[in-house]
Amino acid sequence: MLGEVRSAACIAVGDELLAGDYPDSNSGAIARGLAELGIVVERFVVLGDRKDELESAIYELCARYQLVVCTGGIGPTLDDVTREAAAAAAGVALERNEAVLAELRASYARRACAMPESNERQAWFPRGAQVMPNAVGTAPGFRVWIDGGTLCVLPGPSHEMQDMLRRELLPWLRSTCGQGPGIVRHSFYLLGLPESAFSDRAGEWMARGATPLLGVTAHTGILKVTLLGKGESVEGARAQIAARAAELRARFAEEIYSEDDPRPGAAIVRQLSERGATLAVAESCTGGLVSELLTEVPGASGVFVAGWVSYSNASKVRALGVDPALLERHGAVSREVALALAQGAAERSGADFAVSITGVAGPSGGTPEKPVGLVWFGLWREGRLEAFERRFPPVDRASIRRYAAHTALNLVRLASR
Amino acid sequence: MLGEVRSAACIAVGDELLAGDYPDSNSGAIARGLAELGIVVERFVVLGDRKDELESAIYELCARYQLVVCTGGIGPTLDDVTREAAAAAAGVALERNEAVLAELRASYARRACAMPESNERQAWFPRGAQVMPNAVGTAPGFRVWIDGGTLCVLPGPSHEMQDMLRRELLPWLRSTCGQGPGIVRHSFYLLGLPESAFSDRAGEWMARGATPLLGVTAHTGILKVTLLGKGESVEGARAQIAARAAELRARFAEEIYSEDDPRPGAAIVRQLSERGATLAVAESCTGGLVSELLTEVPGASGVFVAGWVSYSNASKVRALGVDPALLERHGAVSREVALALAQGAAERSGADFAVSITGVAGPSGGTPEKPVGLVWFGLWREGRLEAFERRFPPVDRASIRRYAAHTALNLVRLASR
Repeated sequence: MLGEVRSAACIAVGDELLAGDYPDSNSGAIARGLAELGIVVERFVVLGDRKDELESAIYELCARYQLVVCTGGIGPTLDDVTREAAAAAAGVALERNEAVLAELRASYARRACAMPESNERQAWFPRGAQVMPNAVGTAPGFRVWIDGGTLCVLPGPSHEMQDMLRRELLPWLRSTCGQGPGIVRHSFYLLGLPESAFSDRAGEWMARGATPLLGVTAHTGILKVTLLGKGESVEGARAQIAARAAELRARFAEEIYSEDDPRPGAAIVRQLSERGATLAVAESCTGGLVSELLTEVPGASGVFVAGWVSYSNASKVRALGVDPALLERHGAVSREVALALAQGAAERSGADFAVSITGVAGPSGGTPEKPVGLVWFGLWREGRLEAFERRFPPVDRASIRRYAAHTALNLVRLASR
Repeated sequence: MLGEVRSAACIAVGDELLAGDYPDSNSGAIARGLAELGIVVERFVVLGDRKDELESAIYELCARYQLVVCTGGIGPTLDDVTREAAAAAAGVALERNEAVLAELRASYARRACAMPESNERQAWFPRGAQVMPNAVGTAPGFRVWIDGGTLCVLPGPSHEMQDMLRRELLPWLRSTCGQGPGIVRHSFYLLGLPESAFSDRAGEWMARGATPLLGVTAHTGILKVTLLGKGESVEGARAQIAARAAELRARFAEEIYSEDDPRPGAAIVRQLSERGATLAVAESCTGGLVSELLTEVPGASGVFVAGWVSYSNASKVRALGVDPALLERHGAVSREVALALAQGAAERSGADFAVSITGVAGPSGGTPEKPVGLVWFGLWREGRLEAFERRFPPVDRASIRRYAAHTALNLVRLASR
């Protein structure tokens, strides 16, 4: 019946999702799981705990997609309406499943508790539904046929959903509809290139009809470029991607820092480790962010020697030996102070590389000559000193700090290749 | 035309959302904003970068809801299809807006860059649309009427969306359709209390039927406690909340650090500013995170004097004067080294308060005596030294670092009150 499932939709149920208390992450996890079988999720829908709306959404989506996976609303309380909505959409009654009820009672007995009355609700299913056991919680899931589509209902708590997805739903889909056409994604992470410049250099690779499809997203200096290949088989999709991936690697050799891990800190820790080189950091406007991005990586201790957050002028002088005359003459945000900070960090730590950051992160403190967004970088590479100036869009303090931190990491990356 | 808007839907556009790369958090933020006006969001929909599907979803949702807010897909690249889909759903052509184009070119000129060709796309809008300027990015949003509903399109990057929501969309909605029935939320942020201890002390305030409703979420040591009041008017809802808020303030006086800003760093910067006191930080396992949480706050420069990221033993000795014999005898993660780090930071910076953090963040490096999750803190308060030991759940490196950073900030908060 499900032999040709190739498209699907997800529904997430919960007032707390609609209220914006936290985002729906279940649907994305389900989409990643289904992609392994060649099933493309084309739509996520989030709805509140209201039976009528959920019923009509289930009905409409089952008419449009062959597979609809719904999470949430199958707990023991009265605001859990997914069972009722599914039965109504299927046009059948709810029936108590005695085997499930006995197992529920037994699981409470094993923990030496009496089963709360309300949990009996979890043993009711739409007539004709197939039950999916819950190995890590009390609410079983189920599958039910609704017109042309199949509705699969999983629990809302993320670890229960994940367990049932891996243990029940994906194996059942694989056995029922087999391994579908291949869908393969491959991502590249780039530093040092604006999105529009990437787009100009990528040219027609980015056309909507291109094969493979290429998507790009930008965030404070980091570009994520994703190739999406579709083919008769996973191998076919891989082959489709391989050629374009090779072209991308050649055209953006300078900018690509990773093909798996989005963290620029991880790329630099790996690169310096491979060289056996060490790094020190002197930060002013980034206030510890560069050190943080490096040390969040396990194994950073072999590479990252020391960091200074010399936020005040006094600490630039006392901790890193910056000449007070430089601060007086050129100001803290200047080529000269950037160089002195990098030199101070290198000499005090003995590191092979040192990078410094001093800029105007805003929101206040900008002047016509030194506007918000202006950042100077100093780079010590094995005895040589260089300075770099950047002017970031004066969007907000957090973004400017992130732009600056990513730029500092990129300077180290390019210098230590 | 919008006089009676009381229900709405959100659309988020992006292949990366459907692929499960990250969840849609824009729709939740919009729902929280609209709730302030008494507008209830009843559905979120996530769609990929395909014009036809987006067009039909926009059309259907505008027929069903009076207001549809769509985020994403208005960047400069060819995979940004929201402009085209909106125009098609409205049955109008796209038109170039010369004023917007001139402003785009001017903003590039101010940064002394040439505007990439592809950015011109951002100056095209459905005919008849009202443009919403983007104060923090290049892509303007717009509003367009489609059959019975109003479609409002905002940018996808979260900080741009938030800015346009607050600066453009909510004020326009308030002026157009007025203020609806009252839904008021008020949040408290607490440090130093586990969720279960909060629950025990809050007692029946947390019952599901309580008025106002009280919800609590916990994240790496920070509790967010939210009161939700509903009434005929905003004033009624506010009054409902006010009494419980006063009780909460009294019962959790020690633990509440903020009622508006979730950032513990902001609370400490404010508190130290008010006292005219200064702070220095010496970090080992948190690797710059504490300094980062403090310096992300504008105005931190008046309070935060200096930070050291003394990740290696050598840098603990060289930069902060820790006696090598202490490291030898007690190890880097010890009461003695925590005290020496705090003292070193205080003496070298001249700050009134200094806090140090040294622990085992994992995933490797744990031993039976010093397991992953063990963290020692040193605290210098105006000449006196104290040490504190904590054992955090060994969940993952990032969480342990965040727990430790929040604990360090809380120690400073309690010491400097």
